[in-house]
Amino acid sequence: MSEPEGEEPAFEIAVVVPKGNVNAEDSSFDCVELLVREFRKLGFVVERVIGVADEFIKLAAALETLGRAAARLQVKKRTRIGVDLLFEWEEVEAFVRQPDGSLFSWSERFHCYQHLIYGIENKSRSAIILKHEGKELRWEVGECLLQKLEAEGIVKDVFPLHDEIKRKKLLHSWALHWRGFTDQPMDEICSYFGTKIAVYFAFLGMYTKWLLFPALFGLMLQIIDFGSLQLLVLPIFFISITLWAIMFSQFWKRKNAALLARWQISYPVGADAGHKLLGMEWGSFQSPMEIIRKWGTDNTKEKEFFQRNEWFGRFLRFRNDALVILSIICLQLPFELAYAHTYEVVESDLMKFGLTAVYLFTIQYVTQIGGKISVGLIKHENNENKEKRADSLVYKVFGLYFMQSYIGIFYHALLHRSFLTLRQVLIQRLLVSEVLENLLENSLPYLKYSYKKYRLRRKRKCEKGSSTGKIQFTSRVEKEYLKPSYSASIGDELEDGLFDDFLELALQFGLIMMFACAFPLTFAFAFLNNITEIRTDAVKLLTMFRRPVPRAAATIGAWLNIFQFLVVMSICTNCALLAWLYDQEGKWKIEPGLAAILIMEHVLLLIKFGFSRFVPEEPAWVRANRVKNATQAQNMCSKQLLRTMSGGEKVFSEVKRSESGECN
Amino acid sequence: MSEPEGEEPAFEIAVVVPKGNVNAEDSSFDCVELLVREFRKLGFVVERVIGVADEFIKLAAALETLGRAAARLQVKKRTRIGVDLLFEWEEVEAFVRQPDGSLFSWSERFHCYQHLIYGIENKSRSAIILKHEGKELRWEVGECLLQKLEAEGIVKDVFPLHDEIKRKKLLHSWALHWRGFTDQPMDEICSYFGTKIAVYFAFLGMYTKWLLFPALFGLMLQIIDFGSLQLLVLPIFFISITLWAIMFSQFWKRKNAALLARWQISYPVGADAGHKLLGMEWGSFQSPMEIIRKWGTDNTKEKEFFQRNEWFGRFLRFRNDALVILSIICLQLPFELAYAHTYEVVESDLMKFGLTAVYLFTIQYVTQIGGKISVGLIKHENNENKEKRADSLVYKVFGLYFMQSYIGIFYHALLHRSFLTLRQVLIQRLLVSEVLENLLENSLPYLKYSYKKYRLRRKRKCEKGSSTGKIQFTSRVEKEYLKPSYSASIGDELEDGLFDDFLELALQFGLIMMFACAFPLTFAFAFLNNITEIRTDAVKLLTMFRRPVPRAAATIGAWLNIFQFLVVMSICTNCALLAWLYDQEGKWKIEPGLAAILIMEHVLLLIKFGFSRFVPEEPAWVRANRVKNATQAQNMCSKQLLRTMSGGEKVFSEVKRSESGECN
Repeated sequence: MSEPEGEEPAFEIAVVVPKGNVNAEDSSFDCVELLVREFRKLGFVVERVIGVADEFIKLAAALETLGRAAARLQVKKRTRIGVDLLFEWEEVEAFVRQPDGSLFSWSERFHCYQHLIYGIENKSRSAIILKHEGKELRWEVGECLLQKLEAEGIVKDVFPLHDEIKRKKLLHSWALHWRGFTDQPMDEICSYFGTKIAVYFAFLGMYTKWLLFPALFGLMLQIIDFGSLQLLVLPIFFISITLWAIMFSQFWKRKNAALLARWQISYPVGADAGHKLLGMEWGSFQSPMEIIRKWGTDNTKEKEFFQRNEWFGRFLRFRNDALVILSIICLQLPFELAYAHTYEVVESDLMKFGLTAVYLFTIQYVTQIGGKISVGLIKHENNENKEKRADSLVYKVFGLYFMQSYIGIFYHALLHRSFLTLRQVLIQRLLVSEVLENLLENSLPYLKYSYKKYRLRRKRKCEKGSSTGKIQFTSRVEKEYLKPSYSASIGDELEDGLFDDFLELALQFGLIMMFACAFPLTFAFAFLNNITEIRTDAVKLLTMFRRPVPRAAATIGAWLNIFQFLVVMSICTNCALLAWLYDQEGKWKIEPGLAAILIMEHVLLLIKFGFSRFVPEEPAWVRANRVKNATQAQNMCSKQLLRTMSGGEKVFSEVKRSESGECN
Repeated sequence: MSEPEGEEPAFEIAVVVPKGNVNAEDSSFDCVELLVREFRKLGFVVERVIGVADEFIKLAAALETLGRAAARLQVKKRTRIGVDLLFEWEEVEAFVRQPDGSLFSWSERFHCYQHLIYGIENKSRSAIILKHEGKELRWEVGECLLQKLEAEGIVKDVFPLHDEIKRKKLLHSWALHWRGFTDQPMDEICSYFGTKIAVYFAFLGMYTKWLLFPALFGLMLQIIDFGSLQLLVLPIFFISITLWAIMFSQFWKRKNAALLARWQISYPVGADAGHKLLGMEWGSFQSPMEIIRKWGTDNTKEKEFFQRNEWFGRFLRFRNDALVILSIICLQLPFELAYAHTYEVVESDLMKFGLTAVYLFTIQYVTQIGGKISVGLIKHENNENKEKRADSLVYKVFGLYFMQSYIGIFYHALLHRSFLTLRQVLIQRLLVSEVLENLLENSLPYLKYSYKKYRLRRKRKCEKGSSTGKIQFTSRVEKEYLKPSYSASIGDELEDGLFDDFLELALQFGLIMMFACAFPLTFAFAFLNNITEIRTDAVKLLTMFRRPVPRAAATIGAWLNIFQFLVVMSICTNCALLAWLYDQEGKWKIEPGLAAILIMEHVLLLIKFGFSRFVPEEPAWVRANRVKNATQAQNMCSKQLLRTMSGGEKVFSEVKRSESGECN
């Protein structure tokens, strides 16, 4: 094996248990002791750390331990010849290494850890009686030990640990590397946080870099006074911004495909997403005989099953989407309009302030409830996998936020029909949302962490009586335990903290695109904000939170569709804005100018939907590699497969006879 | 082998040579005799038929002859386990049969025939001197005999033959089966004509069946007088027609995928289209060693090559498309408008008639020239394969026809702004185009055939002197030779007769969709026309033409995009028509009605582009099968592949060393 032998594996998982009485008499049946023994039996390197309030069991695994688990899990990995094959520990040399030299990605390692530690079952013939601080537990045959202990509250938490060396390195080369502008060490981020988070940062980086063009253009429009040409310059700005956005979304797809090719991940062109299709697992190994037998018989039944399942699933999704859209229009829209209208009508500033406070308080709850209802609805959909469910949630919740963020601005725009007021509103929103959110985002986790520490210290002090001064949290693992986890504001069932980060980006994108004509300078604001956003998000992830649980998704998923939807919306809204601008007397007469706007809108919409035909989302070299790999693999084993099948000639002739029997 | 032994294979290819002097002295070096001997050597069953003017060599091949050719050609075929593998004659039992029981499809058979008969080369060490009617030919070493003879004019033609038994059966069960309505024996059509033509008829059948709904709706609107509700009924009609069209195009994709699954053809989701990518052939078998060695080294070079090639190809296409669009707008548009305007201005009917005659005469030439220019332009594009080039041609030429067919109608509509005049124009166009084209389409081939016969008879008579009465064409093969081939009106380099059939359908679809609001009855016209179109097209293919050369494409290709483009156009034009209808005084004031039309337009456009997200184009069961097949194949040979690779461990370590060398 080529793995460096001397190096100790890093600790990557921590299990939190209560600080027990170590000097108890019969430690052999104490459940924490048993857990540690079982961990050692699995091949883990175990380190026990006694903290201020709890005890922490840190786990590390040698490569072979993980490798054997991966083979059992039937993980598919890219091989040297470019084909994804089922992993086998004996043939480890055939598989491609990660860019950082390790065999498994963080996501694969985490998956293996999970499989191992939740795989500890009672394999003896009778239930075992465990003890914990006097209490007795029955560990039934075949029961999972860790789940049992979690249910009993003995294991308080299981969480992934930061890797101190890599973390420090990343902090230096990424989070605090301000001179890097939009450059980020993508490979290191991917190997430390997994693809989903790496893809978010790649997107943020590319988006910020691309923003430079409209930011400069907008700044130019603001500085230079075009005089009477103003009415001509704005449409030009609008057209170039739209083209910019269309190209951005398509080129992002290409960049995503290229990134995945670099990270040796198969690009999901429908082929690999179906690995676990409609809850049925195809991955398991079957002998050719079985396959042949199956193939002949239940083909039509299977087809019917899939058809029924497909349409039923579609109906459920349609019903849920209709429900969400209806409730947004019937419940949320009047509420938002009422607020916007009252805000306009009320005259005293104090009243306005109070109103806004009440409003902000209310929408917090509205969004929370909306998120919960959406999660509830999604449970009744049969989406293919967890990432699809998460996407479905994103669409539904974004509907809420969309109304919340923009309907007020539209109302102001329609009511006043003056660009100056609209600009004021936009500046307010941008400043408030960006400054406030950045502040909150970065201080809230730290405050939470400090509060937890403070509470623990008080508790300890009360227990010990008022004794020796301040209690220090010396162990790093305890500090990490006290940090909040990277979770979404709408509940962490399907999404993690990336939801909030993406939401912020999408709302910003909507704001700057949909009202681009009213206030070209917003692009410059957004550009500055995103430059800082990259670094603050990085600092946040590296220092404020526990290490996030890695997610498997390899694209930005639903968010890309939302960005594209916002582009389409922005074409319509900007045309409306331009029409208002040209028609300030409110005559609503279609003159050449307005007709030109209408034509322009249609042409732009056409370009939007036609552009993806012109520039495919997968670069030719990625596609060529993929096709080459598939062809090579098939050709290499073509003869082999045919030989295997001819062994089953009898089965063939049987199948054939039954087929010809059906035909006649 | 399970092939019925006693049955003689049918003759499928004919080679036309001049009627020679059979009793010549040294027949051993006569090139026709040599050709026949070579055919027999290859394993063909040869029958020589002496016709009135020429001699015909009919060829048939036993299954084994074709099978060995297919193995040499590395044809990929579906196996019993659902995976496409390289064909091998020894393992013939592992491959799936066609629905009609034969091993190879017509397209595969034709491919093998071509490979065999054009594979006759001079394998001796020196050139052979051949004789033909006194002339001497040098057959060089390694030269293809058939190409040589074609170049010398000795082989006049090579064409596929009709299978008399199957043809009669199809004529009975399909072409003359009028009671079948839109039902057609798809499997038989596919096995007789190949997938491309079968897919056309499947499309025509489904389109006609779906047309029933708008036809009935349109008829209802025509018969019932809604009085004052008329202004409300038309928008409803328009909305339902648009939704109908959107659903039709999506459900057609699903039907196409289902058909291909039934015919055991892999659905092109990007994977198989790249079999021959950018002119590079991946299909050839390479040993794992070679692949491994290749993989490590020229990865980046390859990537650069592909990137350069991709963008250069895109630039060429863009330039060509821009050229075509510009020339259509700058040259054709003024011409069409001039005609439409002159037609309006001229008052005498005689003048109008003359003008139209001149116009019709001119556009014949314009289209021909346009087609030729397009073919010339496409030669400079590097499209992936022949079908992509054909698609590129279809787009370009359709641009021409689009202008030609609709711009006049738009002009009339804009000029008169009266629905009655528009209706008259529409009826004129529909009747003229449909009745006239159907007549022409069906009589022209017959006239050509008769004329050829007539000329041959005269020639014979002149030679023989005025002897015994009428000369009969008794041999069937000679009759087929005299029939015209199924070729496109714009030249047969890239497209065959399907081009004209699809063009007719697309122009009809555009006509009925884009002016749906002006004249709902057109759908009923189109429905009746298509019912007859199915049968007349079938009769035409079975009796009027030679058997068409089978094409490999498995979808309707560019035409689907054209249909979708027409749907988008129709949304815009119908909204414009409705706006004209509501605003008959020409005030152009945006009142609630007009605003509603604008909103409706946007919503419909949104649905058009969003619907494909809601209903995927590949049914779940087709996708499940595909994924299952791919996974099974990979899993079955996963272990095998890994073992093969570990044999090359040395190469691995070398590659690795060079890689790590690069990294440091």
